[in-house]
Amino acid sequence: MDRKQLMESVKAQMPSKRWEHTLGVMETAVMLARRYGCDPEKAYLAAILHDVCKYWPVKDQGDVIRDNGLSADLLDYDKELWHAAAGAFVAKRDYGIDDEEILDAIRYHTSGRAGMSLLEKVVCLADYIEPGRDFPGVNNIREIAEHSVEKALIAGFDGTIRFLLDKGKKVYPLTIIARNSLIEEIVG
Amino acid sequence: MDRKQLMESVKAQMPSKRWEHTLGVMETAVMLARRYGCDPEKAYLAAILHDVCKYWPVKDQGDVIRDNGLSADLLDYDKELWHAAAGAFVAKRDYGIDDEEILDAIRYHTSGRAGMSLLEKVVCLADYIEPGRDFPGVNNIREIAEHSVEKALIAGFDGTIRFLLDKGKKVYPLTIIARNSLIEEIVG
Repeated sequence: MDRKQLMESVKAQMPSKRWEHTLGVMETAVMLARRYGCDPEKAYLAAILHDVCKYWPVKDQGDVIRDNGLSADLLDYDKELWHAAAGAFVAKRDYGIDDEEILDAIRYHTSGRAGMSLLEKVVCLADYIEPGRDFPGVNNIREIAEHSVEKALIAGFDGTIRFLLDKGKKVYPLTIIARNSLIEEIVG
Repeated sequence: MDRKQLMESVKAQMPSKRWEHTLGVMETAVMLARRYGCDPEKAYLAAILHDVCKYWPVKDQGDVIRDNGLSADLLDYDKELWHAAAGAFVAKRDYGIDDEEILDAIRYHTSGRAGMSLLEKVVCLADYIEPGRDFPGVNNIREIAEHSVEKALIAGFDGTIRFLLDKGKKVYPLTIIARNSLIEEIVG
């Protein structure tokens, strides 16, 4: 499958609005990869595929996680998190991506994790700040992203955590662990 | 050691202001234990001892944790958390408390944990809302505590988490796990 076929196939699995978001993440991830020094080609591929399962029926996302023994604790948390683990599995099974760096960038693009690679940080951050995003505080995160991918990602996670507190929803512990890990990195 | 000797001994290990706080936690923990139906005597004992190590030199608190193999991951987190694990150990070693329910209520009074007992909830909540506490939102937590110990504790943890986000500090994952567990309890 060439690049054009890959994009057409992923595009066909989501509403056009979400495909626009994916294009924004691709553009931003490549820009951040160049700015911070990881492989723009890997960032591009991870970005194309990061939301491949996002608009699958939730049951199908859950089935991919359950049937293939992917981080089962995810099933106890917000369904918004499921598409990332399912997406990494589908990227490998259906699109032949076997670069573990790219698969991890898809797998952890929503939750984060301890010790994220630069590629994982770049894709996760791009998902927060691509040009189509418009939530309170997004411009602050964009400004921080000019000089620190770690600080920008902490600001992104902070926003997510505050949103979940406001809504009385559970917080996925891995996101807290990811944020703690980033704080350790910048404090040194 | 009778009750009076116990109180004198704990009092001698902290500044008078902190002893006043301890008296407030005792009073509130007993009230909450009666309101929600756990043993007021156990609440009273846990409250007396909950901050026994709080004003020990931080190095001594760390030594108790390290030397006795108590939750070692605590040492990677805010020193404010250390006195709880150290306190449970000291309550047993120096004050002969061998009731595991009371020791757990001391051990988890700052962090919380998954599946907290009612006694643990009561002591943890009393620490947030005793009459001497005066932080933004405390009256809201007091009002919620009139009808739900779980909801009040979630509000307390929410405040702690927001404070740590504001300060750019790490959040102890067990507190997130405690809050998630309480949310599961009230949602059912």
